[in-house]
Amino acid sequence: MAGPRPGLRRDTQETRDRLLAAVGELLAESGPTFGLPELARRGGVATATAYRHFESIHDAHREFLLQLTGRLTDRLQSVPPTWTPRRRFDAACERWAEQAADWGPAAVHIRSWRGFLERVHLGDEPTGALYAALEPIVRDLIEHGELPDQDVEYAVLVWITMFDERVIVDLRESKGWPLQRLARVLGRSVLSALGGTAT
Amino acid sequence: MAGPRPGLRRDTQETRDRLLAAVGELLAESGPTFGLPELARRGGVATATAYRHFESIHDAHREFLLQLTGRLTDRLQSVPPTWTPRRRFDAACERWAEQAADWGPAAVHIRSWRGFLERVHLGDEPTGALYAALEPIVRDLIEHGELPDQDVEYAVLVWITMFDERVIVDLRESKGWPLQRLARVLGRSVLSALGGTAT
Repeated sequence: MAGPRPGLRRDTQETRDRLLAAVGELLAESGPTFGLPELARRGGVATATAYRHFESIHDAHREFLLQLTGRLTDRLQSVPPTWTPRRRFDAACERWAEQAADWGPAAVHIRSWRGFLERVHLGDEPTGALYAALEPIVRDLIEHGELPDQDVEYAVLVWITMFDERVIVDLRESKGWPLQRLARVLGRSVLSALGGTAT
Repeated sequence: MAGPRPGLRRDTQETRDRLLAAVGELLAESGPTFGLPELARRGGVATATAYRHFESIHDAHREFLLQLTGRLTDRLQSVPPTWTPRRRFDAACERWAEQAADWGPAAVHIRSWRGFLERVHLGDEPTGALYAALEPIVRDLIEHGELPDQDVEYAVLVWITMFDERVIVDLRESKGWPLQRLARVLGRSVLSALGGTAT
């Protein structure tokens, strides 16, 4: 999902990736205050080229969010399903924290105002894919008795809420927690919130 | 804090309140797509009057957020401190859910991108006042042995993260949960996350 777009020539794909990286840099530096001309300058391409890739700056924001949601989903899905449920959960939390620390300072400026479950129910594909990466881990924890039987949708919502990029950036910057500690503490809070005994 | 502004004449204050109510209506209906002229029309005043109250539409958004944060803080602070810590916590969760259900559909469009702790540390007054309303309840729960001793700042962050207006609106609309259930379930998740035995 986070990979190259089908049908794009390789140099076009490279330009697109460079522009999306520039979206992340500019957002992290100064929020959503720039337009396509400034984005083009940062990406080192002509303004007309930026307009060929994105209809508007909002389109560029959306594509940036799509790319990072895809990346996060890929990282979560690559946790080996043969691991024990608890090890899968811990690894997912760690990868999530790493990802969110990377693009969090950019993404906090343009996050969706819609609820996570609402987006899943509306059939929003990247949100659905993220849900589909988390849900089997929660089910596995329940099946192995590490969590009591419960509303899995609510459980995934609690997980995603606690790993909100704004929370991760806040804990890193306000409390100076290193990523590993942050992933461990947040992960334990999630497991406890869901009725598990987080040790 | 959520009361009238000192130094404003009564009719000026009424106009201001009407305009802030109109900000909430327009945001809930269609997000931050309107300007001061449209806000003035909705509030039933001349455009020039709206400009006398707000420098820009962003200023109107900010004042709206200030007003609702103040209201929330007032409601939380009015929970009697003589109640048992657990009763105080439950009442605070219920009032919070009521408040967030009211202005949540508007506020999700304009929430701060800054982390909660960052805003507290920066000396942002309304965020500090909200923190000051929650912190004694957490300390009380710890002193009475309902929660283990812990980092109170992190505990308040968990509480505020789970009661995010986007989560409350999502649970109401996507799962159809009534407010009381929602407050109870989220409150239990918070207590469990913090190591309490939520019964």
